[in-house]
Order: sequence, then C-alpha cells, then structure tokens
Amino acid sequence: MTLDLAYAPSDALANVRGSAIRDLLKLTEQPNVLSLAGGLPATELIPAQRISETAARVSADPAALQYTVSAGVMSCREVVADYVGVRDVGQVLLTHGSQQALFLLAHALLNPGDLVVVDDPVYVGALQVFQSVRARIRALPITAHGLDVDLLRRWLEAGERPRIIHTVSNFHNPAGVSASRSTRIELARLADEYGFLIIEDDPYGRLRFAGRSIEPIAAHSDRVVLLGSASKVLAPALRVGWMSGPPDVIGLVERLRQGVDLCGSTFSQLVVAELLADHTWFAEHIDVIRQEYGSRAAALTSALRETLGGRVTFTDPEGGMFCWVRMPGVDTSALLLEAVAAGVAFVPGAAFGVEADFGDCLRLSFATLTPDELAEGVRRLAVAVAVLDRG
Amino acid sequence: MTLDLAYAPSDALANVRGSAIRDLLKLTEQPNVLSLAGGLPATELIPAQRISETAARVSADPAALQYTVSAGVMSCREVVADYVGVRDVGQVLLTHGSQQALFLLAHALLNPGDLVVVDDPVYVGALQVFQSVRARIRALPITAHGLDVDLLRRWLEAGERPRIIHTVSNFHNPAGVSASRSTRIELARLADEYGFLIIEDDPYGRLRFAGRSIEPIAAHSDRVVLLGSASKVLAPALRVGWMSGPPDVIGLVERLRQGVDLCGSTFSQLVVAELLADHTWFAEHIDVIRQEYGSRAAALTSALRETLGGRVTFTDPEGGMFCWVRMPGVDTSALLLEAVAAGVAFVPGAAFGVEADFGDCLRLSFATLTPDELAEGVRRLAVAVAVLDRG
Repeated sequence: MTLDLAYAPSDALANVRGSAIRDLLKLTEQPNVLSLAGGLPATELIPAQRISETAARVSADPAALQYTVSAGVMSCREVVADYVGVRDVGQVLLTHGSQQALFLLAHALLNPGDLVVVDDPVYVGALQVFQSVRARIRALPITAHGLDVDLLRRWLEAGERPRIIHTVSNFHNPAGVSASRSTRIELARLADEYGFLIIEDDPYGRLRFAGRSIEPIAAHSDRVVLLGSASKVLAPALRVGWMSGPPDVIGLVERLRQGVDLCGSTFSQLVVAELLADHTWFAEHIDVIRQEYGSRAAALTSALRETLGGRVTFTDPEGGMFCWVRMPGVDTSALLLEAVAAGVAFVPGAAFGVEADFGDCLRLSFATLTPDELAEGVRRLAVAVAVLDRG
Repeated sequence: MTLDLAYAPSDALANVRGSAIRDLLKLTEQPNVLSLAGGLPATELIPAQRISETAARVSADPAALQYTVSAGVMSCREVVADYVGVRDVGQVLLTHGSQQALFLLAHALLNPGDLVVVDDPVYVGALQVFQSVRARIRALPITAHGLDVDLLRRWLEAGERPRIIHTVSNFHNPAGVSASRSTRIELARLADEYGFLIIEDDPYGRLRFAGRSIEPIAAHSDRVVLLGSASKVLAPALRVGWMSGPPDVIGLVERLRQGVDLCGSTFSQLVVAELLADHTWFAEHIDVIRQEYGSRAAALTSALRETLGGRVTFTDPEGGMFCWVRMPGVDTSALLLEAVAAGVAFVPGAAFGVEADFGDCLRLSFATLTPDELAEGVRRLAVAVAVLDRG
C-alpha cells in the first residue's frame, strides 16, 4: 500500500498567503512594460566597483571563506552595532537579509495561536512569517502618523495581549508614510506597560531625501528589536541583514539559527563591515542614492498630480522607495490588466490588505525607473484608467 | 500589568537539542589544543585565489548584486543539475547551504507528530531540524553497510509509517561509513512500496580517496531528495547548497522560501556556477583535496593502530572528513576533559546518540590537521586514556 502523503504542504505552509507580488512580477517582466511594481533598489546605484574590489581583497584570504558562528562575524557585528547606535555587540545578530531576521524572531518566540499585530496595509513578507507559525493575526490601520496607536490602546484596554507587534517605522512598505515621534513614544510606552515585543522593521531609514529623521522606536523602550539591512543601502545579493535588541532575544535567535542554516557568509559579512566602516565613502554613496531617489519621487508625484490629479490622493514620500496611491471608485486589480496592456505595471492595494480591503489603492515604486520613464508610466496609467472608465 | 512572556523560547525551539558540538568548539579553541573535534573543511585547501578572481569579475556587474528568485539563479541551477546528473532544472533548487535545504524540506512537508526516521548516530543538524517541527523521531542504527534496512523493514511491516527518512549516504557524519549498493536499492524499494520520502544527504560524496563510488539512492527511486553543497568542495562561506528531487516537492520548498529569507545570493550562486562549470579546473582541485584528505586519514588511522591498537576499533575511512572510533569500557565524555588537559579535542559519541548511547565512541576529524599533527593528537589522546585508566 502506497501512502502518497509526503508531497502535501505542511499545515504551516498551507497557512501562508502566496505573494501576489512575486506572481505579478512574472506578468510585468514582459518587454515594453514599465514596471513600478517591484521592490528592488535601483541596480545602477549599487556600488558594484567598490564591492568588486573589496570582495576580491577579502576573499583572497581563505579564512574569510570558512564557516562563521551563528551570530555572525564579530568585526561585522561591531560595525553594525556602531551603525545602529548600540553599545553592546551582544545585542546584535547578523542575518541572511532582514526577511530572515523576521522569520527567526517569529520561530524563536511564537507558538501557534499567539497574537501578533501587524500593519494594515502590511509588508507581505511579515504577514507570511507570522502565518507560517500559525499566529493569530490582527492588523492595525496605518495612518498618516504611522500605525494607529489609539486603536491599539483600546484593544489592549479591552484585554487583547499581543506577544509581538510588527511595524515598518520609516517610509512604510507599501504605505509610504513614517511613524511620527509621538506614535513611536506611545507605542514604546504601551510595550513597556503591556509587555509585548516590538519588531521595528527599518530597511529604508537611511533613504530619507526630505524632512527630518525621527529617533527609532527602539530609542524609547528596551522591548524593541530593530531590524536593518544592507540590501537597500549596499546590495541585496550580499544577503546581510541584522537585528539589534534585548540580549536574551538575540540568544534565542542564535540558538534557533544553528538548525536553520548554521550561519551566514563570513565573506559577505566582512565586505559589509568594510563598506559600512568607511564612513566618508558610505556617506557620499548614500547621498547619491538619496538624491536620485528624491528626484525620482518628485518626478512620479508631479506626474501623478498633473495627469491624474483629480482622481488620486497620495502621501508625498520623504524617503524610501514607495508611493501609495488611492484612486477612489477604481478597482485597481481590474485596472492592472488594462495597465499592463497600456505598458505599465503596479501592485494593486488588495495584495497588502489584512483586515481592510485597499481595493482602490495601488503601490508605485519610484526606485528603479528614471524620471522620464516614471512620467511616461503615469501617462500610460492614465490611459488605462480612461479605458477602464469606458468599461 | 506586565506580561513578560515575549522572551521565552517557542515550544518548537525548546524542543530542539542544543548542539553539544558547537558548545564544545568553544572549549577546544584554547591555544595548544589540537582539535579533531571540528566539522570544517581544511582552510588551506579552499581555492581562495580562484574564488577571489571570480568574485571580482562577477560582482563588477551590478545585476549580479540584485535579488534573485527563490529557487536560485537559473544559470547556477543548470550547472548544478549537470553536476548532480539531473536532466530537468525544475528538479533543482539552490539553498543557503545544505542545512537550509533540510530545514526547508522539514518545514514545507511535516506537521507536528509526523514520524521521521534518522540515523543513529545522527547528523545533529538534521535532528535539530526535525525537532524544530516537533516531529516524532525514531532512529535506525548505522551498520557497516549504512542504515539498518532490515530493521526498517520490520518497523514498516509492523505498521510504522514514516513521512521522511533522512540518511547521510556517503562517508557518514559521524559514523564514517557509506551505505552499500544493496542498502541503497532496498531503501529505495521500501520508499516506493511504503510511500515515504528519502532525504539523501550527501555533502561529502566527491571526497572519496579510496574504494569505488556507489550510485546514489536517488538513482533507484523518484521518491528521493538528494542534498549537496559547495561547502566541502569549494568554500563554506559561499553558503550555496542545493536539493534535487520531485518537482512538486521543489515547488513547495520554493513557496516556503519566499517567507524564510526571500532568496539566496545571486553573486555567490554565479561564482559557484562558474567554478563547477570549469570541469578541468574543478577535477584538478578536487583531486588535491582528495589526496590530502587521504594522506591525513591514513596518518590518523596508522597512529590509532600503533598507539591505541589494543583499545579501539574503527572503520577505515574511504572519504569524507571523519573517523568514528569505539573505545570499549571508556566513558568518552569523561575522557574529553583529560584529553583537553593533554592538548587534544574530539567530540564524544554521546553527542550523536538518539536511541543508542555511544558513550564509548568518539568522532575524530582528520580534515584540518597535518599528518604530523594528527599523529601527535593521537599520542595525546593515549596520554588522556592512560590518565583516565589510573582514575
């Protein structure tokens, strides 16, 4: 008798929502489609020459090509501790991108049924992680000031006891906004009062091109694990992310990681350490990215105002890679089909909804196209809207 | 009211046995201790110059530093398909080392309570993975011919229904032996008859320095996922491993991976593709490793025979990195303390036991020390045995 059960997905995997974004990227890979759908940084702004030189020098030493410890190469942990402003290197652990940091935290700390609060709209990679541990998930609306702490307080007062709250604090993916200082302070205060852990996910914080920096939530409470990454400031293929937080949380994650994939790449971590520690070079490099992303964001929002001004609302991005657009009365999933036909792609808001729908929203990335291409993309989007209007 | 629960380990993590080996490595990092305890390949045999040149050239292209898809860079998947002898690239997925392949397979396919059969003694990284999904675990003795298929058949006939059987087929870690051809054929036949999936873990297969190669289990059934890795043949820090197996299993793993860490390193995968595809260079490079490991294994076993011949039994290694030694009447955990005092380290057998004890066994790695150092290590081991004898 054959029991052909081995190939069914585990209950944990079956519980994970597929990434509509990944599926969409296939659709948008057609030639002649201007894609504002992706979540990649600009390829041409990756410092390939500097990485190539550093990689060559670092990897000439065979010791740099051995295994390392699960928490990461000490010299890189030290540089990252300095980068994120943490004094104790025992509070820092390096990961294979910050997506892995999320995964490790969830699997090290959560049991099925534990309550986790996420953003609505949500970073889909976070939702997938919490679904994969079969957490109970509630979602807080993202307001213009960051996640809705007033609603959170009412939930807490009504007896909800989250174990973890995950939020993207700067230049939200997909909502574009940053949490205000008062949102951060109140969230930190609630964490201390109610004993939950905050995962402050911050891949984009260094990419500010307007407005003033705001201290991280982590500055206001010890109950915060702050996530960061080299992917958006150096290169995604280095696969170096990090978390900084309470040493006992770091210790649990380190213990889990041994069985997950043993360790990260010694070599990549040494490259990242060298580039982040070269403060002069890094500051100039980041300025180039910031200026370019700022120009691109301005081109996108100007085009939106000029071409679709009467139909859309959006928040002016002050950094990061995304602009979140609301188009009242338009079903953006239906619009996407017309848009691809017109030669432009975006991600419909529905892909990011947890409790809310966002059926009339869309996420536009301004990171990977030139100002001219972005203007042309918006023109094509307007064509698609007109086609959909004619129905 | 503060609920300070967030820092407790998840039930899944609490269920994972700590790695005694990792803990031991700290003990053995003292100067003047010759360590036969590690599981690293020889640092001086890592082809650093070739990797450095390739890394420099590959990473000069910023596209090589972007994200890739979850299954891995297509050109590297194609090279790996050729390397493992698989025709369809859809059967190949690249991972962050083969430890991650194990983790992904377990989490994609298993539910808590599912039966998994492992080797006894076991590769501890596999045990940790199956514990992390809270599988029910049984362990089959490793005989001189590989895992005990006769006992497995009796279990199956008695009604046991494993979902997955994990075994290291070549140069077992820690047991040193390889599964015979008849063991492989019978295991494959049982998988087809009873519908379980075999994970054939083969990080060491190319490191044969004596005897003749044996076709993988995967040659005898489609119900096999074969794991391999660049770590022992090129460099651990590349963090490139792979699995080849049924496309629907690969598909489930790909789906899970998006939430685990998005993808591997484009850059590392392109480096591995180039080095594995250079057949002439690779064959010469592997020959160097094989010859050196063969000399080291011979030095170790000669020393064991000469110095401890009356006290030990062991299998002559034909490849890989490990020699498994039985020392009847000796508690090897107690011996380790004397050994470190005498300036030599190993891993006590108890670290690898699942249902069996192995309290009189030890694992010696011959990969990282010179023949002279290995002979000196065995001499120190004999000193430790003498000290323990005197009690």
